Amino acid sequence: MADQSYPAPPYYAVIFTNQRADGDHGYGAMAERMEALAKTMPGYLGFESARNADGFGIAVSYWESEAAIKNWKAKAEHLEAQQKGRAEWYKDYTVRVAKVERAYTMGGR
Amino acid sequence: MADQSYPAPPYYAVIFTNQRADGDHGYGAMAERMEALAKTMPGYLGFESARNADGFGIAVSYWESEAAIKNWKAKAEHLEAQQKGRAEWYKDYTVRVAKVERAYTMGGR
Repeated sequence: MADQSYPAPPYYAVIFTNQRADGDHGYGAMAERMEALAKTMPGYLGFESARNADGFGIAVSYWESEAAIKNWKAKAEHLEAQQKGRAEWYKDYTVRVAKVERAYTMGGR
Repeated sequence: MADQSYPAPPYYAVIFTNQRADGDHGYGAMAERMEALAKTMPGYLGFESARNADGFGIAVSYWESEAAIKNWKAKAEHLEAQQKGRAEWYKDYTVRVAKVERAYTMGGR
């Protein structure tokens, strides 16, 4: 769900698309922990995610700057999660770092 | 699913996050039609989408340039779909146009 309000662009988005491997292997607990931890990081703006029944998912996190993204990527607990992600949780994934240039909203957000 | 191969950045992403309203109202058929139509547009690179059971979804389309995005946004059939989206299909949505600056992949894609 989206429950944040965002600043006017420009800001950054990290688009993480992934296909889950079978089985949980601690994924659910770690995903919750990482979302909670991300919220405490400098420059964090928001997080949204969705997953299809077939295991394909898209998660987007929003950040004030590239520096904030690099700082989050290098956070020790997050590095552990990235290693587990490669080894156990994802069949494949793509990470894209993108600069949000324009944004518009309809409705309640 | 992701079945495209993408060029090296920079290219553009349109991040469409949305909350579906209740009922189909022709949404499924139109979504399929719009995906098929987008693939025929100049500068189209790819499309990915995921939706949670609660109706929250994220769709990302990828484009060579901002001009390609503007051209797609203004396409007549797509304008109709946008109008129906505002009126019937979505409780709320946000569109973000973002320039992909870096990308990396693990696994089969």
